Amino acid sequence: MLTLTILGNNSAIPAFGRHPTAQLLQYEDFGMLIDCGEGTQMQLSKFKIRISKISHVFISHLHGDHYFGLIGLLTTMSLLNRKDELHIYGPAGLEDIINIHLKVADMSLGYPLEFHSITKEGCIADNKKLTVSAFKVNHRIECWGFLFKEKKKPRSVDPEKAQAHEIPSSFYEHLQSGEDYVNQKGETIANTSVTKAAVPARSYAYCADTIYDETLAEKVSQVNLLYHESTYLKDSEDKARDRFHSTSVQAAQIAKMAQAEKLIIGHFSAKYENLEPFLNEATAVFKNTSLATEGTCFKI
Amino acid sequence: MLTLTILGNNSAIPAFGRHPTAQLLQYEDFGMLIDCGEGTQMQLSKFKIRISKISHVFISHLHGDHYFGLIGLLTTMSLLNRKDELHIYGPAGLEDIINIHLKVADMSLGYPLEFHSITKEGCIADNKKLTVSAFKVNHRIECWGFLFKEKKKPRSVDPEKAQAHEIPSSFYEHLQSGEDYVNQKGETIANTSVTKAAVPARSYAYCADTIYDETLAEKVSQVNLLYHESTYLKDSEDKARDRFHSTSVQAAQIAKMAQAEKLIIGHFSAKYENLEPFLNEATAVFKNTSLATEGTCFKI
Repeated sequence: MLTLTILGNNSAIPAFGRHPTAQLLQYEDFGMLIDCGEGTQMQLSKFKIRISKISHVFISHLHGDHYFGLIGLLTTMSLLNRKDELHIYGPAGLEDIINIHLKVADMSLGYPLEFHSITKEGCIADNKKLTVSAFKVNHRIECWGFLFKEKKKPRSVDPEKAQAHEIPSSFYEHLQSGEDYVNQKGETIANTSVTKAAVPARSYAYCADTIYDETLAEKVSQVNLLYHESTYLKDSEDKARDRFHSTSVQAAQIAKMAQAEKLIIGHFSAKYENLEPFLNEATAVFKNTSLATEGTCFKI
Repeated sequence: MLTLTILGNNSAIPAFGRHPTAQLLQYEDFGMLIDCGEGTQMQLSKFKIRISKISHVFISHLHGDHYFGLIGLLTTMSLLNRKDELHIYGPAGLEDIINIHLKVADMSLGYPLEFHSITKEGCIADNKKLTVSAFKVNHRIECWGFLFKEKKKPRSVDPEKAQAHEIPSSFYEHLQSGEDYVNQKGETIANTSVTKAAVPARSYAYCADTIYDETLAEKVSQVNLLYHESTYLKDSEDKARDRFHSTSVQAAQIAKMAQAEKLIIGHFSAKYENLEPFLNEATAVFKNTSLATEGTCFKI
């Protein structure tokens, strides 16, 4: 199961107690921070999430409301005596920024930091159970979306049934990947008669700051959970387009076209105190929508 | 009157809801931010202080807990359409950091920013009513303390008494600066017989991160309000020295030697949840001590 915790849901200017963008995606012992606006370390502390759990950080773009909290988090990790490697994925310029901050403080981090600059779309991180891909979103500066996808799980073999058909255990790996078995008499034993389907692989897509762009729908097709920015309400569609942002309705349209299971919207402009209209406008187009309220956990 | 508002009082790692160092000193319409740890813009908003009021920023040194909130504040000022000039005073490296952040965001500030790098002790800013001086404090990297001092106010002339002594109004300026008057008969009219002393000029000294250093007492001699860091309690004196920090008792000793009127202590280590022992230890040495509690206003 993937669990997404919203740490910050506001756009550029913090307002009404809302913080700039940051999310934590957890998968088993694997903590992945997605964007890291100013105050993220305090938000982690507020929601009782251990900083040491984070092993990977993904930064979508270099507008401050998506990364100004990173350098504080990195130095705090060092002050807390972290020894584990930390992986950061983001636009190339970010590494220089981290280094200049460390240099002026005459400080080095007490743990290995691996910086991976994102240069093209495709898989950027990968382990036995999960892949993370980057895809381009359409913003004023270079900006990346991220798709987190569980790997397809093997089918589970029912040993009693397999033995009844005299299938040798050396063939079980083939059964797990869906193959039928043909016995010595030439009879075909259907895979489905001796295996059960695995729990479906789950996915989460994070569409960082972007103008309304229908090509995104294909990139995030059929995800279980989709985050799409929604800086403005419908009546500010022109402003949204001018600033390379989206509206509530546009976010919902992308979710609908992508046939996503569920949508969450965030990155609200500081001009809105009440967020209910965002929900109302989006659900009119795509029913299964939630606001990315800070502190909320979404289970995928 | 000077008013000091505490925005952050913790040392490097934010803890127990306490934020890294930041203070706002207000004098009439003049807002001066002293250090700017991560989250300062949210703290200003929390305490209902208008960001537009800040005209000058003083950064003591380039450890992150004293300046990581600056770039967020600067960009927010721009997004709020600030047009007024902002002056920043700090170590030279800070300007490069601001510039690299703006460059990667492909952003320029919408208001004039004047950066003044501090290179030596002495007056760094000055207007009709106030002077700000920088003085060296003794930390692991280049670090500055700041002394804010109202200019000496002129004595006020009592016109009736002055006229009774036939003192011409052209001499009033001399009276205001304390001179006696000698009339045409050669008689001396004592200044004090025709003037009243002005309200005494007020002063505030900010001793940023520093090891216990008795030479500081002279630099902040007789200030009305002294802020001195107090990262540790007395029993961690060795640790304080190793890390170029001070204890509660050491801060109080400096206040006593300086004959300050009042002391406030802050920059508490994240290892202390309860701050009462800081106050108890300090007041045993220097009675008129307060904790730099966030949100508190000290009137000078």
